[in-house]
Amino acid sequence: MNDFQLDWQRSRRTGVPEAVLCEYKSPTQVAAIIVAASEKGERLLFTRLDESHFLALDFAIRSALDYDPLSRTAVLGGSMPVASTGVGIVAAGTSDMSVAREAARALCFNGHDAPIVADVGVAGLWRLTERLDEIRMFRVVIAVAGMEGALFSVLAGLIAAPLIAVPTSVGYGVAAGGYVALNAALASCSPGVVVVNIDNGFGAAAAAVKMLSMR
Amino acid sequence: MNDFQLDWQRSRRTGVPEAVLCEYKSPTQVAAIIVAASEKGERLLFTRLDESHFLALDFAIRSALDYDPLSRTAVLGGSMPVASTGVGIVAAGTSDMSVAREAARALCFNGHDAPIVADVGVAGLWRLTERLDEIRMFRVVIAVAGMEGALFSVLAGLIAAPLIAVPTSVGYGVAAGGYVALNAALASCSPGVVVVNIDNGFGAAAAAVKMLSMR
Amino acid sequence: MNDFQLDWQRSRRTGVPEAVLCEYKSPTQVAAIIVAASEKGERLLFTRLDESHFLALDFAIRSALDYDPLSRTAVLGGSMPVASTGVGIVAAGTSDMSVAREAARALCFNGHDAPIVADVGVAGLWRLTERLDEIRMFRVVIAVAGMEGALFSVLAGLIAAPLIAVPTSVGYGVAAGGYVALNAALASCSPGVVVVNIDNGFGAAAAAVKMLSMR
Amino acid sequence: MNDFQLDWQRSRRTGVPEAVLCEYKSPTQVAAIIVAASEKGERLLFTRLDESHFLALDFAIRSALDYDPLSRTAVLGGSMPVASTGVGIVAAGTSDMSVAREAARALCFNGHDAPIVADVGVAGLWRLTERLDEIRMFRVVIAVAGMEGALFSVLAGLIAAPLIAVPTSVGYGVAAGGYVALNAALASCSPGVVVVNIDNGFGAAAAAVKMLSMR
Amino acid sequence: MNDFQLDWQRSRRTGVPEAVLCEYKSPTQVAAIIVAASEKGERLLFTRLDESHFLALDFAIRSALDYDPLSRTAVLGGSMPVASTGVGIVAAGTSDMSVAREAARALCFNGHDAPIVADVGVAGLWRLTERLDEIRMFRVVIAVAGMEGALFSVLAGLIAAPLIAVPTSVGYGVAAGGYVALNAALASCSPGVVVVNIDNGFGAAAAAVKMLSMR
Amino acid sequence: MNDFQLDWQRSRRTGVPEAVLCEYKSPTQVAAIIVAASEKGERLLFTRLDESHFLALDFAIRSALDYDPLSRTAVLGGSMPVASTGVGIVAAGTSDMSVAREAARALCFNGHDAPIVADVGVAGLWRLTERLDEIRMFRVVIAVAGMEGALFSVLAGLIAAPLIAVPTSVGYGVAAGGYVALNAALASCSPGVVVVNIDNGFGAAAAAVKMLSMR
Amino acid sequence: MNDFQLDWQRSRRTGVPEAVLCEYKSPTQVAAIIVAASEKGERLLFTRLDESHFLALDFAIRSALDYDPLSRTAVLGGSMPVASTGVGIVAAGTSDMSVAREAARALCFNGHDAPIVADVGVAGLWRLTERLDEIRMFRVVIAVAGMEGALFSVLAGLIAAPLIAVPTSVGYGVAAGGYVALNAALASCSPGVVVVNIDNGFGAAAAAVKMLSMR
Amino acid sequence: MNDFQLDWQRSRRTGVPEAVLCEYKSPTQVAAIIVAASEKGERLLFTRLDESHFLALDFAIRSALDYDPLSRTAVLGGSMPVASTGVGIVAAGTSDMSVAREAARALCFNGHDAPIVADVGVAGLWRLTERLDEIRMFRVVIAVAGMEGALFSVLAGLIAAPLIAVPTSVGYGVAAGGYVALNAALASCSPGVVVVNIDNGFGAAAAAVKMLSMR
Repeated sequence: MNDFQLDWQRSRRTGVPEAVLCEYKSPTQVAAIIVAASEKGERLLFTRLDESHFLALDFAIRSALDYDPLSRTAVLGGSMPVASTGVGIVAAGTSDMSVAREAARALCFNGHDAPIVADVGVAGLWRLTERLDEIRMFRVVIAVAGMEGALFSVLAGLIAAPLIAVPTSVGYGVAAGGYVALNAALASCSPGVVVVNIDNGFGAAAAAVKMLSMR
Repeated sequence: MNDFQLDWQRSRRTGVPEAVLCEYKSPTQVAAIIVAASEKGERLLFTRLDESHFLALDFAIRSALDYDPLSRTAVLGGSMPVASTGVGIVAAGTSDMSVAREAARALCFNGHDAPIVADVGVAGLWRLTERLDEIRMFRVVIAVAGMEGALFSVLAGLIAAPLIAVPTSVGYGVAAGGYVALNAALASCSPGVVVVNIDNGFGAAAAAVKMLSMR
Repeated sequence: MNDFQLDWQRSRRTGVPEAVLCEYKSPTQVAAIIVAASEKGERLLFTRLDESHFLALDFAIRSALDYDPLSRTAVLGGSMPVASTGVGIVAAGTSDMSVAREAARALCFNGHDAPIVADVGVAGLWRLTERLDEIRMFRVVIAVAGMEGALFSVLAGLIAAPLIAVPTSVGYGVAAGGYVALNAALASCSPGVVVVNIDNGFGAAAAAVKMLSMR
Repeated sequence: MNDFQLDWQRSRRTGVPEAVLCEYKSPTQVAAIIVAASEKGERLLFTRLDESHFLALDFAIRSALDYDPLSRTAVLGGSMPVASTGVGIVAAGTSDMSVAREAARALCFNGHDAPIVADVGVAGLWRLTERLDEIRMFRVVIAVAGMEGALFSVLAGLIAAPLIAVPTSVGYGVAAGGYVALNAALASCSPGVVVVNIDNGFGAAAAAVKMLSMR
Repeated sequence: MNDFQLDWQRSRRTGVPEAVLCEYKSPTQVAAIIVAASEKGERLLFTRLDESHFLALDFAIRSALDYDPLSRTAVLGGSMPVASTGVGIVAAGTSDMSVAREAARALCFNGHDAPIVADVGVAGLWRLTERLDEIRMFRVVIAVAGMEGALFSVLAGLIAAPLIAVPTSVGYGVAAGGYVALNAALASCSPGVVVVNIDNGFGAAAAAVKMLSMR
Repeated sequence: MNDFQLDWQRSRRTGVPEAVLCEYKSPTQVAAIIVAASEKGERLLFTRLDESHFLALDFAIRSALDYDPLSRTAVLGGSMPVASTGVGIVAAGTSDMSVAREAARALCFNGHDAPIVADVGVAGLWRLTERLDEIRMFRVVIAVAGMEGALFSVLAGLIAAPLIAVPTSVGYGVAAGGYVALNAALASCSPGVVVVNIDNGFGAAAAAVKMLSMR
Repeated sequence: MNDFQLDWQRSRRTGVPEAVLCEYKSPTQVAAIIVAASEKGERLLFTRLDESHFLALDFAIRSALDYDPLSRTAVLGGSMPVASTGVGIVAAGTSDMSVAREAARALCFNGHDAPIVADVGVAGLWRLTERLDEIRMFRVVIAVAGMEGALFSVLAGLIAAPLIAVPTSVGYGVAAGGYVALNAALASCSPGVVVVNIDNGFGAAAAAVKMLSMR
Repeated sequence: MNDFQLDWQRSRRTGVPEAVLCEYKSPTQVAAIIVAASEKGERLLFTRLDESHFLALDFAIRSALDYDPLSRTAVLGGSMPVASTGVGIVAAGTSDMSVAREAARALCFNGHDAPIVADVGVAGLWRLTERLDEIRMFRVVIAVAGMEGALFSVLAGLIAAPLIAVPTSVGYGVAAGGYVALNAALASCSPGVVVVNIDNGFGAAAAAVKMLSMR
């Protein structure tokens, strides 16, 4: 009897395919899932796969994966055609790039090419306003910020597209763990901000895919 | 000098008009805003206006408002044409109806007619599955639940439309204040759930309006 | 033996006189302090004196006070000459005015006339930028905001004067109690923001007085 | 004088024998307990014994133990006859298997053979409903889930057997540490769910043993 | 369209009938449920119905209910035969009696007559040990305690029956809200304690009913 | 069967008699305890008895009590000889007097006359140092402080007597509820500070009585 | 200029000498303090000195210390005469021995010989009651417990000596960090329990020394 | 496209130049920033750069930095003239020196020479009072303390200069993480204390620079 039972129909049912969260799985468990998916010829996305965890997999299994250490994501089954579909990612700081890239890689896995507008935190407001025309072209915006998360409110007050806030665990002292950015997004005075879990770039990508697929 | 400065251009800039959160304003402050908006001939939505707060307003001012005590919302400036545009509200329990209605009233204020599918909590799963065909017709779903918020994950695993989770403060003991439902929505194992603040039916409506207005 | 022992030398020692926090004192205790100060002919500031608490005092005692219900402050001993000295107060929303006024009243008690720039929250960024020239004239800025407190970071990134952040308890859901605004101020990505306790307009005023008195 | 004093009568008094929680004990302390139990010829269960901790024990002592790294459990004194007695374990995800196995190993130590129904989380509801007939055959169900713990409410609403919820520390962001799953179990809208501490597979097994031994 | 949809089949499916949590429902909503149940001729249990809430119901509706103010419970549809079936309730203090009675009333509604052993907190251990023979006769024990909840561990170490811990919100300072008693129950050093939400006497009763109905 | 069972032997066993915490008991329950104690001719102390709660008791029962509204304590059974035995109470502010008096009244009930040194908070350090000789005469010191509780560390660094810290719930913002003062006492850099629950003047008195009775 | 300034008069002023908390100091800083104390010929106690931290000190410095790895304490300056003075330590479990030994070592440093009564947790109540006569001989009791900390209330209800509760960080899930045991001690229903910080065996020893030195 | 976009105008706009928080950036990202700044010939301050992180940089890049391991700060671009301008740093304990030095290094980077008055915690009050004349000469005081943070209130009550409190994460048990010291600073009974994030020596320095630059 297996430890796992993949939900292959999820994509048809919900519009986004299942992904494998690796953090709490043993290398043995991750490898078994990769083997099963390979045998079925299915593409599969892996998230929160730390480099040490990745290196604990057999060489043959590692070879089957397209792995990116900064975002801790891996793709099994190769790339598919990607097109620019209107989703863009806006990241407050350099430290937020790993989460921004998790979102970008998950979007790419689903066929969406999403540019990242990086390091536009509000401490230097001109960095954001200078690129506002570019950002206003996006149909859906994923905003990624840690610390106090002021970017979410400022940006949401300037654009009409749906804004998905991804708080990150970047910060120290009261900001450790990402709760300040999370709560800032939830308590935003700019109406219509929607929020996903801390560091959940994948979840933001899934939400964006659903919005772009609305009938 | 006024205590307030309404952001009349917000609708043009962000797609959703400003609303007035009444909870922490004195009746004098709320009345001054109503007078200013009336003089400009602007429509305006008021949220979290408790019945006792409403009754503390002058009769003339009250008469200008369309007030609903269950949702604690008031509308100034009369109704506008409303159409069925594909957003639906799914509420887990009877106790969640006040928040569900805040969302419905805010959608209505923006021209969207949103039906409420009520009391379909997962303790009796048949209540949800029985109405799944109806729910699957919605282009955007607002899900409203308190207690442990299991509805969010179950429903998101069954439909393709974007799901906006509104946790409510319905619950006692560990569930008091709505934090369990909030965290359940954020930690959902169903990818793509997006979340707004506890009891924030208005914010969910604003997000839905933005999604329905996507270019 | 008295329940209290006023620290009349505090002003000479620290630059700011003692104030009486009324919230946890009985009307009897507050009245005894007023009588003692009157007998000594001392001026005294009272904070967090709710209207019902104020009304529980004897008429004679109430008559000796200059009471302001919105800020819940009272002044014993009459006004003194007030001058414009360069401190300004910037408030994010109408709901933050009670705290902003507590700061203004405490500054006034110490001889500083501080204008309030009201309702300039970042959801409508133009409201803030439109008044930036005015704000840049202040030598010290007290910023007052609840909800997600994004004003602190944005404003601190735009001005050179010291910025004292006063988070307020305005908000609901995760923002209830003012902790999100407090933490946003502490975690601000704009360096040099200094912070006082939630709703502590008086403390911000005391800090501003100290800065303006620096040798 | 010893650091420990085993409670050999516990089984007679409470129906479940004492187990040794190893996490906060030094290898020296664990070894001393093993030696003492061996000398008395007693069987003993060890929990939360990390692999590195296990490897720090002397070879002779390790040889006396039946150790399972995934569940971090060890058994001293060999196996005893095991029978199918009606308790079953239902686990939401692959990551929850270590806790599910702790429960299974503890049940086995007490003579109960408990099958595990794995990876039936509610994001793909069909995985659960497909196996409902099998689950309904259990006299007692131990449900194991991390993240948002929605499995507890859904499953409890579908079966008549007592359901013991074991929240796990599987999750990140708000779900880190297992508090969301714990609170979801406690706040469940399905009445009659009973709960044990986070990751406490052993405790759930002990409770199941007591239920199966009811007079 | 109704705000509610009662789950009449729940009893057949899960062994315990649905109950109505009144705390967050308006009198109008509660009354509508009572009328609907009366029309169907169904018995129904209402919990967390404060006396002021009860008195806000119409006289005719109140007359149909058997209301108990201490436990804040009401029963619609009259009593049914009750028998002694082996469940007993042990309460640590006088202040815990309202929750103990909620459990007793819910058990009674389901046909179980459950005696309450009151005020046996461990500060005076003799009060508990003196009644141990009586308590050891119960097949299932519901233990109710607030403050530090030490009763749970002590009692569970002395009896073989399953022990369902109900922490109560009785306490002040760090014990306010019942979290200390809740956590003490979850962290109990006596294995096999199972726990329900704070003040959830009804949930404990439902769990006991399920245990007593085990095949 | 009674709801209560008083532990009359507690004084002989532990050195301090039982007291009745009234906050979560109904007037009916409190009255029943008073009647039972009166019939036995026992003296009894009641704590956390709010004035409205006291006034809800029958006149005859009220007449039997010596009630003090500031400390919310009542004594049944009259006074006993009181002597100065070396315990003193030091209170940081006027707002802490209700808790200081609870301690003083509980000490008095046990035969100890304890003076209160009031309003010596460290913001005006001279108030404390001026009275240090007096405080150094006490054999045991009970220190009472809210807000940031700095008094505990400062005073403990200046005296040799055991210091029992009683944090109070006096404070607002982060200090609301008394947790800052509590944690400051626990984390004190002055070794040997011992702590009781927030607002627990009675507990501090009980500890002092035990210290004064040491063999 | 030094980074440190030892408070050599503390013993004369407060009855207990200063100790050096090593956890947050660099080996360089610890070594400098040792050298300074050696030069002055002073005895000194070091706490929370992890074995790896100890091993990072120079050999010559290590040789000057009497180091105990289980309690993470070191003594500089050799032993002094120790006598049995009536303080005893009661530890709930084997895992609590490191904290119990920190208390014992600190007492020994101050000339008190304190026996440890080990592994008497309340899950097996007989272990405690069997040794009650021995424990009742102590003039002061230090009780050490983690998990749910039920030992504090049970023991305090059985003895007349002052009881100093030391919660430990032994536990997992909700008990992680020691907060449950801490709060259980603070909320104890047995009056007169006094509490020190989590894992603070040294602080409990200092308090006991003060009590034994009471005039 | 770069991951970063330095805000070179910040100094002109806000009076303090941008600094680079290294903790959450990869060595690659930090190195890229150093190269970019070097090419522009800009001076730059780096904070929270752990020694292992520093050692992961290329030798050539390390050589360009003036690195201090205790404060985890690095300076690129060499020193500039430094003058004594009236800011002083007061640190409660030896363990707080790393944060005190971060403040001193950041001040030095901005041209201010700030002496550190070390190890003057209030447990030995004489250490502080002995140096009070020296401290009273400072125009601005940065106070650094962990544990219970009593230094903030005591010192602020004794001096007239603005006091910027920097709570540190020095402490264990309830003091772990620095929240007790943070809250003690915010809740200080000495008015006018202003606070920055836990361990944020850099932020305190920035605030001091702003105060010293007030027009």
